[in-house]
Amino acid sequence: MVTPVHSINGEVPADVSQLRQDPLTGRWVILAAGRRNRPNEFPLQRKGNVAASECPFCPGREGMTTPEILATGRPAGTAPDSPGWSLRVFPNLYPALRAEESEPPGGRRDSPRINPLFRSAAGTGAHEIIAYSPDHEANLGTMARSDVVALLEVMQKRYADLSGDPRHRYVLQFVNHGPEAGATLAHPHLQILATPFVPATVREKQARMADHAGRTGRCLVCDLLAAEEAAAERLVARDEHWTVVAPWASRFPWEMLLIPRRCHGSLLESDPEELDHLAGVLGDALRRLDAVHGDTPWNLVLHGAPLEESRGEGFHWHLELCPRLSRLAGFEAGTGFAINSIAPEEAAVQLREKEC
Amino acid sequence: MVTPVHSINGEVPADVSQLRQDPLTGRWVILAAGRRNRPNEFPLQRKGNVAASECPFCPGREGMTTPEILATGRPAGTAPDSPGWSLRVFPNLYPALRAEESEPPGGRRDSPRINPLFRSAAGTGAHEIIAYSPDHEANLGTMARSDVVALLEVMQKRYADLSGDPRHRYVLQFVNHGPEAGATLAHPHLQILATPFVPATVREKQARMADHAGRTGRCLVCDLLAAEEAAAERLVARDEHWTVVAPWASRFPWEMLLIPRRCHGSLLESDPEELDHLAGVLGDALRRLDAVHGDTPWNLVLHGAPLEESRGEGFHWHLELCPRLSRLAGFEAGTGFAINSIAPEEAAVQLREKEC
Repeated sequence: MVTPVHSINGEVPADVSQLRQDPLTGRWVILAAGRRNRPNEFPLQRKGNVAASECPFCPGREGMTTPEILATGRPAGTAPDSPGWSLRVFPNLYPALRAEESEPPGGRRDSPRINPLFRSAAGTGAHEIIAYSPDHEANLGTMARSDVVALLEVMQKRYADLSGDPRHRYVLQFVNHGPEAGATLAHPHLQILATPFVPATVREKQARMADHAGRTGRCLVCDLLAAEEAAAERLVARDEHWTVVAPWASRFPWEMLLIPRRCHGSLLESDPEELDHLAGVLGDALRRLDAVHGDTPWNLVLHGAPLEESRGEGFHWHLELCPRLSRLAGFEAGTGFAINSIAPEEAAVQLREKEC
Repeated sequence: MVTPVHSINGEVPADVSQLRQDPLTGRWVILAAGRRNRPNEFPLQRKGNVAASECPFCPGREGMTTPEILATGRPAGTAPDSPGWSLRVFPNLYPALRAEESEPPGGRRDSPRINPLFRSAAGTGAHEIIAYSPDHEANLGTMARSDVVALLEVMQKRYADLSGDPRHRYVLQFVNHGPEAGATLAHPHLQILATPFVPATVREKQARMADHAGRTGRCLVCDLLAAEEAAAERLVARDEHWTVVAPWASRFPWEMLLIPRRCHGSLLESDPEELDHLAGVLGDALRRLDAVHGDTPWNLVLHGAPLEESRGEGFHWHLELCPRLSRLAGFEAGTGFAINSIAPEEAAVQLREKEC
């Protein structure tokens, strides 16, 4: 997975990222010291967000971000990094991972302080931002469907580009909506993290899909789709390309899973019609959520195949939509299990009842 | 682990807990519908805590909790569930798990809605509260050392009692300090959750300890202790029984690991001298944390051996102290990996510098 190297005495320069493996759990952590300088770090302590009048993602402040990778909607003749865009992609100014990161030298092996328990690797990767609306107050649930389709198309493009780098093992795309969901800036944006390892949750899903296929010859997610359609009680919405369910073991109240009906490995393989329908069901799901609970903080995370298997073998991609109404308490972080006070069957009834 | 049974169509009665396994990740979730009725549910949305004048854990309001299991410090002749206690243990009024939970019936197997992908089990277990000070404003870091020792002794007692129930596979003890750390009530209290399964994080640690022992014949945590002592750069504090380090792959800024020097499986096997010293190093660690960052929200989680192995074979117990200054964002919940902006070597320097 990652190429482990010995640490150089644990020194992490202020502007360098390093991956470290916990010797007790085996989990990898990204140490990204440079992210401390970003606005609104430790938002729990420093209340309030960056004001719209100072938002670095708003049109007219393009100079506050790194130069853009691409933009859409810009009238002919306008320059990059100037206003006029409807969607803009740029590298995160405070990246968790970076392309130019070099391997930490494996030297000083004679030092008594180097121990094989302390495994690390270079924080090689990429961390990009898609500001998907020029409107500081825009909401993915109420944006024009065509604008959501444009976002999905750009997500595909960036996915294709980043997946071509052989150092990347996974391309993670996610949105944090609201400070309760971890957003440090209110302006609507999606984050892309290309990582040199496969996230633990994706590995777990991959292993269970492989196990199920080995035992039954069928896709686990296809079987789950069929089981949810048959049970019906956790269905929230569906159309000819997508099914939205409140998952059987929901960790969060009103959690939803958006599953493409056609079995394929990642967003990269979704065709234009599937993308168009995804824009529809995603907006619908977000509007239902807000209709049930009011303005709700949420995380949206795409789970697709690790890159070496991205041509659809053994993975059926999907999106997790997790409302963040209760905190992830310490015992959840310290134990790996969640407590949820709303049964998904009840959540599904509430979500279905809303006209959206 | 848990005895899986088929669900009865996913119905979770309002006052019953149920364990459910996520078919995609294999992780178990506790559905505890009764917890919705507790005060301050969804604290992110309803700002502010229960006022001290209405606190159900304060002396004089014992009638607002379930009847006490035990209390200490009470003058002779005072009745249970009346004031006078210095520490009081009672079952959680809104339990995530309960002793009297019965197995959901496995019936209606003829229903087309029952599918082997939907695994569940009864929410059998226990959920207790230790209110460890009558003072609503007390803080584990500044309480008298003798009061912390009294708490540790009661934790041992409850651990011994709950571990005797053959339905329990793990006894989890943890403190959530501050609303940012998931505390719904400000009054200082510790929670005990006896579970019918071993938490995923503990299983991971157990597997790595077993692997290390198989390869080297030695205890992983003992080797880690020796490596941290040799490296020295992540040491925060130590005495003859305990070592406190900023862990190599810290997930949180100023995270600390409290490790007993003597290799034993759980709090149950700690002797009185070790408990007395733990009270000292725990208070010291919490005071250092507050000296570095001000009044800090944190989670304290004890990680010990699963009950079947509680006699010390293969597990070296320890405590995780996790400051909660940055939110667990969605991609952390959705991927299983953390991003931390402060290197543990730097955190250790800052924590060491403080005189406590």
